[in-house]
Formats: sequence, structure tokens, C-alpha cells
Amino acid sequence: MNSPARSTSKHVRMQINTRRLLSRLDDLAAIGALPGSGVQRLAFSEEDLAGRNWVQGHLEALGVEVRIDQVGNLFGILHPEPRFAGSGAVMLGSHTDTVGRAGRLDGSLGVVAALEALEVIVASDWRPARPLILASFVNEEGVRYMPDMMGSLYHAGDLDLATVHAARDRDGVSIQEELERLNYAGSGHLSDLVIDSFLELHIEQGPVLESNGADIGIVTGVQGLSWFEVTVDGASNHAGTTPMELRRDAGKHAAELTAQLRDLTGTMAGLRLTIGSMSWQPNLINVIPDRVVFTIDVRHPDPAGLEEAEARIQSLLLASHLPGKGLTVSSRPLARVAPCAFSERVVAAVSGAVEGASLMGHRMISGAGHDAHILSRCYEAGMIFIPSRGGVSHHPDEYSTDEQIVDGAQVLLHSVMTLADHPVSAT
Amino acid sequence: MNSPARSTSKHVRMQINTRRLLSRLDDLAAIGALPGSGVQRLAFSEEDLAGRNWVQGHLEALGVEVRIDQVGNLFGILHPEPRFAGSGAVMLGSHTDTVGRAGRLDGSLGVVAALEALEVIVASDWRPARPLILASFVNEEGVRYMPDMMGSLYHAGDLDLATVHAARDRDGVSIQEELERLNYAGSGHLSDLVIDSFLELHIEQGPVLESNGADIGIVTGVQGLSWFEVTVDGASNHAGTTPMELRRDAGKHAAELTAQLRDLTGTMAGLRLTIGSMSWQPNLINVIPDRVVFTIDVRHPDPAGLEEAEARIQSLLLASHLPGKGLTVSSRPLARVAPCAFSERVVAAVSGAVEGASLMGHRMISGAGHDAHILSRCYEAGMIFIPSRGGVSHHPDEYSTDEQIVDGAQVLLHSVMTLADHPVSAT
Repeated sequence: MNSPARSTSKHVRMQINTRRLLSRLDDLAAIGALPGSGVQRLAFSEEDLAGRNWVQGHLEALGVEVRIDQVGNLFGILHPEPRFAGSGAVMLGSHTDTVGRAGRLDGSLGVVAALEALEVIVASDWRPARPLILASFVNEEGVRYMPDMMGSLYHAGDLDLATVHAARDRDGVSIQEELERLNYAGSGHLSDLVIDSFLELHIEQGPVLESNGADIGIVTGVQGLSWFEVTVDGASNHAGTTPMELRRDAGKHAAELTAQLRDLTGTMAGLRLTIGSMSWQPNLINVIPDRVVFTIDVRHPDPAGLEEAEARIQSLLLASHLPGKGLTVSSRPLARVAPCAFSERVVAAVSGAVEGASLMGHRMISGAGHDAHILSRCYEAGMIFIPSRGGVSHHPDEYSTDEQIVDGAQVLLHSVMTLADHPVSAT
Repeated sequence: MNSPARSTSKHVRMQINTRRLLSRLDDLAAIGALPGSGVQRLAFSEEDLAGRNWVQGHLEALGVEVRIDQVGNLFGILHPEPRFAGSGAVMLGSHTDTVGRAGRLDGSLGVVAALEALEVIVASDWRPARPLILASFVNEEGVRYMPDMMGSLYHAGDLDLATVHAARDRDGVSIQEELERLNYAGSGHLSDLVIDSFLELHIEQGPVLESNGADIGIVTGVQGLSWFEVTVDGASNHAGTTPMELRRDAGKHAAELTAQLRDLTGTMAGLRLTIGSMSWQPNLINVIPDRVVFTIDVRHPDPAGLEEAEARIQSLLLASHLPGKGLTVSSRPLARVAPCAFSERVVAAVSGAVEGASLMGHRMISGAGHDAHILSRCYEAGMIFIPSRGGVSHHPDEYSTDEQIVDGAQVLLHSVMTLADHPVSAT
């Protein structure tokens, strides 16, 4: 037989096609390109479908089996030799939907690099001992339809089809309507396959790698996240006629509360807390606001730390609820994702690939949520980060150098090859 | 001759028609009534025109001369006997436009009570020694078109016709277009008349009279007002991936700045400062805001106090402008009205009418701006307030008792009669 198992040192001789990878990123970014700069492929839109079709076309050209599931998740399956049938598959990928005015890398990089990895492997004489599955999950961004990471949540069994169908955008259009209008859904599924692991290449979307001068982020887990919406109610009165001491100013009360909330980050290591959204009513120059609604985004890498932060937040909200003074505070949870630690086996594969490529790796926690975070509940999961210039993301200025992009794709290829390699005992 | 001058003590025998006054307030409130509760007659709308037409119809029925000027201000002129021609007129009135979801009294009370005063006088055998002019000024509220008090500003010569014409609402519709569409403007003017004084009855729109148990506010002046718009710029970054110490959070910076601004009221007597409007960009849960725009409404009864407050505000804004830290603060003035002291003669007339009616008067400064404030620059001006329950205004819950409304109208009638009475030397 001419199929000996290859060692990791041999994998590194397999190289991704730099020009093909970069030009495909440009090709995908042209789908939904906005005038001036930026890309928009909001989930379940024509542009989003065009993006998925673009990936599907390349998978079909590659000769891999394509399946689309009932919410529109796309899978491209490269089957192993029959003797390895039943082996747990290695899944790799990300998403191709975008935020409203996005850059060209978030999500797309992970899918295009996965496509490149499959193409290099197909063209080589190396054959995986496990199925390889390119996955492109729908609606990771959650901009048009909540929740984010919807496709991977559905895939992981954490969200049922009826819930996905019922979600509506601001115009009242449901996902079910869009799936039917665009013929977006399929009937494929992966229930005939065992899946072992999931690996996602992504831009960091933060400043850690850049500030550490590192090439690759070896991601060991993802911060937990908890979102709340807080409503502060006071009384609306005329700005000119209402003495200061008689006011029940919801804006002032909200400002004091948000200051206390932000101060929590100074007392708890690892805590990130953001007040990202705030709206005032009636929001008029000469009227004291009677209602302020704001959101809290709180993140922590440890389950206990996230819980402690949530408890401290609730204490502050409770202490600010002063019905006797005509100022009330109420809140509701919007989302919660527990922190996760990635698979040691997957992290080791990534680490080995970084070493093999003589790159400088940096072990880190992901600040942002990703499909890999969701899938870590069912599979051995991991992530590879490349630096984001200035930490900028979700913006046309999102940027990584060509070299960083290529390094990331190379590490993805070699990590996947390690995960899918013939076990030593099978030689 | 059968026209002896009447003393103030005789004036009090003339009584307004309670039922007519109250039912007319209801009639006017039915024009632009909203489903459920509230009234909406935004300036230069069909409803606003219908409200003005309603007043005009009653003036014409009364036989007084009606003039409509080029911006749509309505005047009803009751001329005195020929021997008093050339005497300075007494103008009384207010406005009939409303905010978006208004009560039935703001503005309307002053016009309906002025109509009632004219009607009582016409029906009596008392004849004024001066022209009496009912005035209903357009766009006092400034909700649809800036600036507020537009009609009185135009009348006072502080705003020219081209500027009025050019103002546009949020839909881009100019006042000129609305004047033409609705045939709203006239060609009348008052330049053939000398005007001596202006008196406006209005609800207090604040809690002072109610908390003092007073029946009538004898208004001695109006607070000065200064409005600013402040823009705080930082940098937008991902809430999960950006370490706290690397953030340039415009929301946090704005909260700290507004807290300092509000603290000014604790250090300056007479100062009222309101942050009434605030908007965030991009206003997303998981993105650090890069821009916050808010407004400052600052009021003080004394010119020097207003100037000091403005200077202190500018100092705080300047101290918060930290380009080296990536946080910048800029501001622009939106509006400014200097404080005014009302005419001692008009205040004395009001005070005498309150005493004559055995009511409890309370001398006070108006917190809100009014047409009388603008007209105090050209005429001897004054105002009469009645209590507002809970200080509520600009809301369907705006309320004064029937008795308070009638008392106010009665004081207006007698004050105007005092101002327009035959001088003692003319008997």
C-alpha cells in the first residue's frame, strides 16, 4: 500500500495556495459589497444566500458531498476511505453572514480557509482517516434575527426549528418566510455521521495578539457572557419649571447606576462590562426624561466569576430601585452563554501546527462568542485566531495582513490534518 | 355723556361667563383630539389651521377686526372710540399650536380666556380707552419647526420671513410649503397701531403654585435659557475582546461629564440644568459606543447667573476634551434667551386684579419661555399663571381645576381692563 501515515513534520510540507486563498476572500467580499466600503450579508437575505451559494459552488467543484439542513446550515463532506467509515469527523468552518456594515474577514476567513484546506487535501496524496466536514453556519451575527450563533445552536440541538422559524426581524418578517421566499433551507442532516471535533479559524476582533506581537492565537476557551436590559423609570417634567429638588430624573438615576456598574470592573479580575446601548424617553431638550433603557454586556472567563458578576449587578440594580423616591429600576436577561474551556486535544493540535510552522503563538481566551463556543458543548472544539489591526472588527476597517491570513489558514490546515490523521495503530 | 371712567373696584363686577369659557376649552380641545387622550395640533398642520380657524370664527362673530400676518399669526382688534385712536393698544393672548401629545390648556387657555375677555367687554357698557388686540401666535411650541416662539419672534422683528419660510420639519417639508398648501398666511399687519402692552394667561407648567397653595401666579419675569448640544467621541470596539484599560468609551465619558454638569446646580443658587436628550452610536449591546450626543438645558432668572452657568459649563466641557486619550468633546449652542423682568405697570395691574378678586396671589418667575417673554423686548409685558396639578404639562394629564381656570380668566379680564381703562385725566 502506498498510504503510510504521515507525521506532523511531513504535514508542514503541504502548503495552502496563497494567491487562491486571498483572491477568494476578495471574491466573497464582493458579494454584498456596499458602495464606498464594507460588506453586508445580513442573515437570510439575498446577499447572504448568494454568499452561501458561492461556497456551495466551490464545494461542488471540489467533488465533496454538499448538504444543507433545515435552517440553511451548509456542510461539505469529504469522506475518508471506506476502511475509516464510522470514524468521528473533523469539522472546520465558521459563517458567511455579516453585520450591517462589515469588513471582509469576520466569519468569511474561517470558511474560505476551510475550503482552501479541503482543496489542498483533495489535491494531495494525503488521505484523512476521518471525514472532514466544512461547515458554514447561518446567522452567527444575530443582527437581523436574535439570537446570534443561531445556526450552530440549532445544529447543537439547543434551538428547535419552530423557534428559528418564528424569529422576526424589525420589519416583522419571520425566518420561515425568508426560508421559503429564498428557497434557503434544505433537508440534509449529519445524523448518519459521528462528529469528533470542530475547529474554527477567526480574526481575533481584539487587540491582544497585536499588542503581544504574536502571529497566532491558540484559543483555550471562550469567555462567558450575560446580557441584561435595564429600565429606569422616573417622571417626565418641564426642564424650566421643575425645581431641582422635586425631580425624578431617570437620566440622572441611570447615569449614577451605570457608573456603579462600570466600577465593578475595578474590583473583579477578568471582568469585562460594557454599557453599549442606551435610549431615552421622551428624549427632548426641555423635558426631564421619565424612562431610560440601557443594556449591560458582562463577560468573564470563569463560570464562578460570571456568576459573581451577575450577582453583584443584581445587587446594584436592587439598591437603585427606589420606588419611595419615584425612581424604579427593573431588568430582564437577554442572553447568557456559560464560559467554555476548549478541548485539550484540539488545543494541542493547534499548538503543534503553530510550532511546526515556526510561528509565535499566544495562548488566550476568546472575548467574543463564536460558533466554536456553542459546538464545544457537543464536540471537541477549538479555535485559531489571527491578529486584528487595532482590534477593529464589525467595521469596514477590519484588517489583517495577507501574511497573517495565510499563516492562519496554514495553521488550520495542519491542525485539521493532525486531528484527522491516521492513528499510529492503523498504519 | 354716558361713559365715565370706571374704577378697578367697579371692574370686578364684570364677570366672565364660566360655562362658555369651559365649553370653549372643550371645543378647541376636540380639534386635533387623539384617540384615547391628548390633543395634537402641531404647528402648520391641518389641525393647527383648524384651531386657528375656530378662534377666527369666534372673533368674526364678535364683530372685531381680524388680521392674519405673513407667518399666520392671528389678531382680533377691538378698536376704541375714535377719540382714543392712536392710544397704545393692550394685546392679550397666547397660542393654539400644541406639542405632539398635549393637554387641553397649554396655550389654548390664554387664547380662549382672551376671547372670553373680549366677549364680556363687547357685551358690557364699558368701553376701553385703548385698542384691545387678541393675539394667537403661531408655532410657540417649536416641536415640528425650530425655533419655538416663532410667531412672537417674527412679530417682534427678531426673525425674518425668509428664515421662517426656510425652516423644515423632519420630513423635509418647509414652512413655506405648508403656508402655501394650507393657504395659512395672510397679508395683515399691525404697523398702523401703536402697541403698549402684552398680557398672557397661562398654566404654570410647574409645581410652585400648587406647593404654595396659591390661586394665581403674578409673574414678574422669565428665566433666561441657554441650550447646547454636546458631542462626545471615543472609539467603537467589541465589548468582549477589548480590555477595559484600552477602551475609549464615549458612553462612560459622557456619563462622567453629565454628572459634573448636573453637580453645578448644587453650587449655584437659582440654576436649573437638565440633560433631556441623549443618543448613542452605534447603540448596540456588544459594541462600545463611539459617539454620544446629548443636550444641556440651563436656566437662570438673572442675566449674570445665566452667563456664569454658561461659563462653568464651557469649562467642564473643555476639561473633558481629552484628545490625547482619544476622547473628544465638542459643543454647539442651540438656542439662547436672556432672562427678562416684566413691566412693573403690568405686574401691578395683575396684582390689583388678584387683590380685587380676593384671590391668593404668589409673585414668581416663569421657568418656561413664553410668547410674553419674547414680546417683553418691545412691549410692557406680563403674565398670569394658574396652578398645574403636579406641575404636569405637555401631556394629556395636564390639569387645572375649573375654578382655577375661571379665576385665571377673571384676573386676565380685570388686568386688561385696568391696562386699557380711561386715564383719570380723560374723565
